[in-house]
Amino acid sequence: MRFLIKFSYDGSSYNGFQRQPNKKTIQKELEDALTKINNKKTDIVCTGRTDKGVHAKCQYGHVDIDVDINEYKLKRAMNSYLPDDIHVINTKVVKDNFHARYNVVSKEYKYYINMGEYNPIDRNYIFQYNYKLNIDAMKEGLKYLVGKHDFRSFVTENKVKENCIRTIEKAYISKKNNIICITFKGDGFLRYQVRNMVGSLIQVGEEKKNPKHIKELLDRKDRSKDGKTAPAVGLYLTKVSYK
Amino acid sequence: MRFLIKFSYDGSSYNGFQRQPNKKTIQKELEDALTKINNKKTDIVCTGRTDKGVHAKCQYGHVDIDVDINEYKLKRAMNSYLPDDIHVINTKVVKDNFHARYNVVSKEYKYYINMGEYNPIDRNYIFQYNYKLNIDAMKEGLKYLVGKHDFRSFVTENKVKENCIRTIEKAYISKKNNIICITFKGDGFLRYQVRNMVGSLIQVGEEKKNPKHIKELLDRKDRSKDGKTAPAVGLYLTKVSYK
Repeated sequence: MRFLIKFSYDGSSYNGFQRQPNKKTIQKELEDALTKINNKKTDIVCTGRTDKGVHAKCQYGHVDIDVDINEYKLKRAMNSYLPDDIHVINTKVVKDNFHARYNVVSKEYKYYINMGEYNPIDRNYIFQYNYKLNIDAMKEGLKYLVGKHDFRSFVTENKVKENCIRTIEKAYISKKNNIICITFKGDGFLRYQVRNMVGSLIQVGEEKKNPKHIKELLDRKDRSKDGKTAPAVGLYLTKVSYK
Repeated sequence: MRFLIKFSYDGSSYNGFQRQPNKKTIQKELEDALTKINNKKTDIVCTGRTDKGVHAKCQYGHVDIDVDINEYKLKRAMNSYLPDDIHVINTKVVKDNFHARYNVVSKEYKYYINMGEYNPIDRNYIFQYNYKLNIDAMKEGLKYLVGKHDFRSFVTENKVKENCIRTIEKAYISKKNNIICITFKGDGFLRYQVRNMVGSLIQVGEEKKNPKHIKELLDRKDRSKDGKTAPAVGLYLTKVSYK
């Protein structure tokens, strides 16, 4: 039976989602738990990998379980095996052809920046930026990213062969006290795309670049050498929508 | 020159504030940093010790520094030596007879309880309580704690010889989504007092005890055997006021 697992994690102490030999990863923890429950080696296919240090408030994965177990018991069993920085929120029986990655309609990421006094409790959860950013300029720059574009300029690898056309349906900046949150909702995101977009927006906020710089970057269709990548620490996968 | 240091910390990985042989404590980290700056063994006297796992958004300590250094440079120097889970917010030159503990007028503590889905990111910062609490009943119980009372019933040690009379000036409960926050402001708190008051309030919220139980506990002037202590994880020292 195929289950769709909804889970969250604190990515601080992991080398990202994807399983890697001899490394602590989210995928390894999940598959180790599932293997115990299913009495055989069990793989999970997730919505989309997150990088080292990135968090997820809402991530999904599908998995095929042969043993007789219901949704509630699967949640309970997984949480009893998982470490306390990964948590299964719920599980749901889905059709055998349901795919956690291919069936995604949209994903939402949030990036948090603290412009105020450093707070030790947030050190792994919010990017600490010690100066004031010009948020109006960032908002103006952000507008250029909304819509269907070739995001080649926001991918770290220099020679990107894959299709880099994606649609950002919605993007906005909110501010509470000294903490900025940048939200991106789209049909899919390339590797490092969100952190690269945030990095360039920070340059605009610093007034080192004007907002039009974002449009120029998009038009260039090449990752410029001066492109900044925001650190993993402030990034969260926050929502996933399925067909 | 005497300085008053304002600092914050994530208490998760510490054995509380107070220095203890061969243990990781907040005091040790602060004094190690100060000793390097002051070129001699330097002690800090704090507002009030916090227990293992308790956090501080606002804590103070006074310290005597012999080397020539200004407020800003002392902050910078301390933060360069301190680990990233302790942070100096500011420093201020004070009179030589200023005392970080004796001069306190009031302190504020907050205790956070999550009644909703477990969030891995909050595991060290909010007490996870998996059931709904009756907040109206807790609010009613809380009222009995406000005022000048003998808080002997809320001290863990059975035979308390010291004066346990304290004044709670203000106490209230707020709720945002599934997270409850209980705030206490008073002239001083005994060891475990806040966690014991919260523990008893949780029993009221569970409807195992009625709100009047809190008054009965106060009147009993003895720590009852059924008294619960809330875990350290949700507790924060949040404000300190000086004369």
